[in-house]
Amino acid sequence: MTLSAYDASVPVFVRGFRVLTELLDKAEAQADGSRLIEARLAPDMLTLAGQVQRASDTAKFAIARIGEVQPPSFEDNETTFADLRKRIDSTVAWLESVDRAVIEAGEARPLSRKFKDTEHSFTAASYLLTFAIPNFFFHVTTAYDILRHNGVAIGKLDYLGFNA
Amino acid sequence: MTLSAYDASVPVFVRGFRVLTELLDKAEAQADGSRLIEARLAPDMLTLAGQVQRASDTAKFAIARIGEVQPPSFEDNETTFADLRKRIDSTVAWLESVDRAVIEAGEARPLSRKFKDTEHSFTAASYLLTFAIPNFFFHVTTAYDILRHNGVAIGKLDYLGFNA
Repeated sequence: MTLSAYDASVPVFVRGFRVLTELLDKAEAQADGSRLIEARLAPDMLTLAGQVQRASDTAKFAIARIGEVQPPSFEDNETTFADLRKRIDSTVAWLESVDRAVIEAGEARPLSRKFKDTEHSFTAASYLLTFAIPNFFFHVTTAYDILRHNGVAIGKLDYLGFNA
Repeated sequence: MTLSAYDASVPVFVRGFRVLTELLDKAEAQADGSRLIEARLAPDMLTLAGQVQRASDTAKFAIARIGEVQPPSFEDNETTFADLRKRIDSTVAWLESVDRAVIEAGEARPLSRKFKDTEHSFTAASYLLTFAIPNFFFHVTTAYDILRHNGVAIGKLDYLGFNA
């Protein structure tokens, strides 16, 4: 099948953001929005707003690092569902503005990230499969889990994007 | 970079199971195991045991479907951390027993899955990127979220597998 770094990143993230938007839409229609925006699963975990912000950053920085392009800056000041939708829309618009050729040109470039003072070396492929994609779905899933934990009537097929 | 269906499945799942095992090990060392095994985030969500079982099934059926190979059968009767580790180990052993060539031979074969009475057509690539990988990380993340919600001292780098 020979997936490229583009195939395994931009469309995967854009699809995940579409799912996340639909989850937020259903949550807003059903529940006290302002309570949900600040909801979290543990005192030292991020809120729903934080999960959306970090999903945005994970996708944005993955593309910026692989393509060596400048990502947009976001202030992490979202406090309403409308704000979160706007953050997602801005992220998706930027992801879709990056040329496939720019990402594919970055495929062979080595990447490096430091975690807990240890430098880890990646290729575009290993960066996507061992860091960016697991991290992105962590934040989409945790947003879903926060909503389920707070009684929002959504289901697994909503998360998977096959509920249409 | 040209990822194959093998690159984007078996090693991704095996790495995720290694992470999941480490999360379970930390949970068992810290907390009342029998309570955690049955913990869930909402009354109609799966327990911790259920999340591990579905992660196992997601990986197993993805490889079985792409490679057209017969997967092992599991009874979903795990009730202890030792049981869950055994389930993961059996799943990993089977995943690692499947030849790369068998998976790569299946790359071009169309796949079909029915969700809510609608038949969806996939290639190996679209099946992995829009169903199997998001679903697999859903279950690993929700296992992590259940543990965090119940006070187990684990962190994001444990989930990402970069805490060593």
